[in-house]
Amino acid sequence: MTNQIIIAIDAMGGDNSPNKVIEGISIHSKSSEDIIYKIFGNEKLISPLIKKYNLSNDKIKIFHTDNIVENEDTALSAAKKGKDTSLWLAVESLKHDAADAIVSAGNTGALFLISKLNLKMIENIDKPALSALWPSKKGMNVVLDLGANIDCNSKNLIDFSIMGSALLKALYEDVKANVALLNIGSEELKGNAMIKDTYQLLIENKNPLFDFNGYIEGNHIMDGDVNVIVADGFTGNIALKTAEGTSNFIISELKNALSSSIIGKFSSLLNFNNLKKFKNKLDPRLYNGAILLGLDKPVIKSHGSTDAVGFANSLKVCEKTIRGKLIDQIKNNIN
Amino acid sequence: MTNQIIIAIDAMGGDNSPNKVIEGISIHSKSSEDIIYKIFGNEKLISPLIKKYNLSNDKIKIFHTDNIVENEDTALSAAKKGKDTSLWLAVESLKHDAADAIVSAGNTGALFLISKLNLKMIENIDKPALSALWPSKKGMNVVLDLGANIDCNSKNLIDFSIMGSALLKALYEDVKANVALLNIGSEELKGNAMIKDTYQLLIENKNPLFDFNGYIEGNHIMDGDVNVIVADGFTGNIALKTAEGTSNFIISELKNALSSSIIGKFSSLLNFNNLKKFKNKLDPRLYNGAILLGLDKPVIKSHGSTDAVGFANSLKVCEKTIRGKLIDQIKNNIN
Repeated sequence: MTNQIIIAIDAMGGDNSPNKVIEGISIHSKSSEDIIYKIFGNEKLISPLIKKYNLSNDKIKIFHTDNIVENEDTALSAAKKGKDTSLWLAVESLKHDAADAIVSAGNTGALFLISKLNLKMIENIDKPALSALWPSKKGMNVVLDLGANIDCNSKNLIDFSIMGSALLKALYEDVKANVALLNIGSEELKGNAMIKDTYQLLIENKNPLFDFNGYIEGNHIMDGDVNVIVADGFTGNIALKTAEGTSNFIISELKNALSSSIIGKFSSLLNFNNLKKFKNKLDPRLYNGAILLGLDKPVIKSHGSTDAVGFANSLKVCEKTIRGKLIDQIKNNIN
Repeated sequence: MTNQIIIAIDAMGGDNSPNKVIEGISIHSKSSEDIIYKIFGNEKLISPLIKKYNLSNDKIKIFHTDNIVENEDTALSAAKKGKDTSLWLAVESLKHDAADAIVSAGNTGALFLISKLNLKMIENIDKPALSALWPSKKGMNVVLDLGANIDCNSKNLIDFSIMGSALLKALYEDVKANVALLNIGSEELKGNAMIKDTYQLLIENKNPLFDFNGYIEGNHIMDGDVNVIVADGFTGNIALKTAEGTSNFIISELKNALSSSIIGKFSSLLNFNNLKKFKNKLDPRLYNGAILLGLDKPVIKSHGSTDAVGFANSLKVCEKTIRGKLIDQIKNNIN
């Protein structure tokens, strides 16, 4: 085996595609070697961009198709569009081992359904989970499930613990995985029966991949004391979206405060470098790349509204999951 | 009926009590007339503070007891301490119509259990709900349930919609109540059966107290387009705590950014006034006072760690719920 990695890319999904996709490839290719980018989409739109961003032809393979999945498609209508959409073709290349991972900035539901139709589940995993990276005071967290499954049982949450820990270790080689179950804190009401059962099972059955740290409440997700946070898809999605909304609210209030007077405008210029550092740490593009776990190849979803920098980061996530042997880590540790 | 209001106060609960409680009464009494404060707790500790804060004797009634509920008590152990704890006595004064509302900064579970043991539920409401205020871009939201009930049915969520709207209108007289159900956004997976049923029932059965605006995702809670956000207690608690954690994380990152260089320190001095305005808008003390809805008297929980300013705001919430006829609003609109 060489170190060469092949990433399948649906170039047509998301805002301002394929422009941001090709520019994102250009950014990623400058810091990463031994990558082949298989680009699925409209060659007439893609080829001029390859030239524009001066991408070397030996890193790029374009697979032309006119058929694309739209943002407005439901997962089902996207799948019914046939096996020649850029998304279907990109996923299918993984099925035939012609690529190692896939990324799309398009329709989330479509990516997941078409992936599930084409790729195998890892043995002994019942449900795939959607995971993402979340900044903390001490580094990065993996949080899952973020919405792939509304109804979960204890076996699912234990699988999520294993898959989330494997992802963390694939992305950050030297980090020790510490798992916690997202729960509420009130003494009398601590969690429902399913969460309590999961807690008991995780205490009784240690897994070499991670330490189990019990429950965590929403206000401690970003403390950094644990780094793999596990929830059913409904709860995880509520937490993710609420954090996003709170962050947007505070940043917008901060901007208002800083620009609401002349002295404010002047002094925020002085603060520019520090505020930039602050903004960079919270830049959602840094954490771009949700990962669908449970299938036998890495499936990465870039945010639809991200730009080329964000898309390049989701390519980095693809690369790391492959080099970090994410799928093998899961297979070797699943019960 | 006079306009005089009687607030029962457990003076012994929470950090730094009874000091912050008596100072909080002093702050509140300066802006509010016709209030009698019935203070339950250790007279030896309370009397000197009454003098210190120069509180007029005709506004104050002290009810001495040595027995208090501790932070470490469970709800059950608190209730078992007997009927002469400061908390029990304060709640009991509502039962006998000797006070119009109660506030405590102490043990949350104890306040709720002892309230439920002593006070009647409003007719046709099955479960009480814990609600709180949450800032938005356009004003304030009421969010409930925040943890009183893990398992809810459609009837409960509809009751929460009515009670939350009544609270909003009691607190902000001229505001129109717009209710939304907290849900996740993925098309295929939108909500569980219970949420979908509730949605249908709210569409079919209009209530004069509020407009129903459908679903809301966590990232839009703070947009201000709706102002009563309804969830089961597990989901609501996760959202509340996650917002709190995100807010703490961002503020702490911001502080680091502003103080991480000399020019940062200097320029943040310049920004002081604007940042203070920003901080004030996000000040959790402003929103202090969670309200247990569903009982036939207002039960207010102040944050245990708040200070005198925060406690004064929870007294303001007591006053507004009484003057705004919260309980009558609920009774008149419940199905």
